[in-house]
Amino acid sequence: MLVLGIVESSLELVPSTIAQHPAIKAAAAARRKMPEHTLLDEAVHSTAIKTLTDSEKRGRPDVLHRSLLTALDSVLARENLLRLFVHTGADAIIEVKSHTRLPRRFARFTGLMEQLLLTKRVPPQGSILMQLRRRKLAVQIQQLKPSCTFLLTEGGKQTPPTEFAQLICSEEKPLVMIGGFAHGSFTSTTMNLAERKVCIYPAPLSASTVVGIVLHSVANQLRLSKQRFNSS
Amino acid sequence: MLVLGIVESSLELVPSTIAQHPAIKAAAAARRKMPEHTLLDEAVHSTAIKTLTDSEKRGRPDVLHRSLLTALDSVLARENLLRLFVHTGADAIIEVKSHTRLPRRFARFTGLMEQLLLTKRVPPQGSILMQLRRRKLAVQIQQLKPSCTFLLTEGGKQTPPTEFAQLICSEEKPLVMIGGFAHGSFTSTTMNLAERKVCIYPAPLSASTVVGIVLHSVANQLRLSKQRFNSS
Repeated sequence: MLVLGIVESSLELVPSTIAQHPAIKAAAAARRKMPEHTLLDEAVHSTAIKTLTDSEKRGRPDVLHRSLLTALDSVLARENLLRLFVHTGADAIIEVKSHTRLPRRFARFTGLMEQLLLTKRVPPQGSILMQLRRRKLAVQIQQLKPSCTFLLTEGGKQTPPTEFAQLICSEEKPLVMIGGFAHGSFTSTTMNLAERKVCIYPAPLSASTVVGIVLHSVANQLRLSKQRFNSS
Repeated sequence: MLVLGIVESSLELVPSTIAQHPAIKAAAAARRKMPEHTLLDEAVHSTAIKTLTDSEKRGRPDVLHRSLLTALDSVLARENLLRLFVHTGADAIIEVKSHTRLPRRFARFTGLMEQLLLTKRVPPQGSILMQLRRRKLAVQIQQLKPSCTFLLTEGGKQTPPTEFAQLICSEEKPLVMIGGFAHGSFTSTTMNLAERKVCIYPAPLSASTVVGIVLHSVANQLRLSKQRFNSS
């Protein structure tokens, strides 16, 4: 079982400090929502976001959307060998069941994430698919008790994907953390939580590309397709 | 050099037969466009699409969007080892330069594809990034002269991704065709153009997942990360 954490993800509701910005008010009104009940999104709120601290890392829920779809669509998730959580910059942890059928359209994903951030669970009733807890990443890792915590970062030890997949498969309960943001770098808090820092390619890759390379390489290493062919 | 073709892609402008449908007229008016100048999209036009032939394969430009992003973000594209084209159900061929910076947001991708389908090229002036030609897939393949034409399909020969990557790498100029639609099956025309039909996993996978598995497995097979580490 591989645990994948998409960390420091660019996912939050519009902060109250910029909720009265004209562009944000207008966009919320068009959706008949209160500004603070809408997702911060650089494509809609670019001017207002620039006034926030750490602005380059914020307002990119599309990065998380594509990363989650890549993970949930993977062979590893299909074979029930993936446990998935999202950590946000504001220290929320979202557990995502690996059989969740996430909306493939960004507009619907936005609505779902707004609901999740406001009500802490999706769906509102019945069996939970996504659940949000206020919890620091350090506490999440303590509770997960991984046998090794890896962080994918450009400054990490140069390790080609196939070697990294072997490394992951040699661990009993590996946790792989990938950044859920488009620009900027990890905080020192996150960096200090990683036992091993790994670089799979010496140039920046998008978050969903890293998710794909890691999960597909692990599935290949485990020969999941071959096993499934033989058993079917 | 690998040639990737995303074929029978679910990409077209609203056909004139349903352009007067109230939902389609309203959605176009909200964007201040003529209905026939907007992309057919099942998320907006679901009722009207059901009246079309082959409706299950149509109106899913998001499938192509995610597949293209997966391809263009890949290490193979970064290393200039990928040539990419899109084939649509209406027999148009779109050549996509591998250094194209495609809009990551679906709304902007929609606008760009509308421009491309109307004007046949993007950007309108200067060096071409995407070019559309009316051309059958058979003609495109004749012009490309691949050493072998592969088609990824569930009914193909069971071949785990690492073995498929070896097969691709043993070819001088392989063409890999992946379906750019969400539901339904290939036409017999496309099936007949494939010299080898391959199945990499014995259950349906999303188009972008198949693109990712194939391109990442080929990059691993070629040890591209290792080469780049050594040369940097």
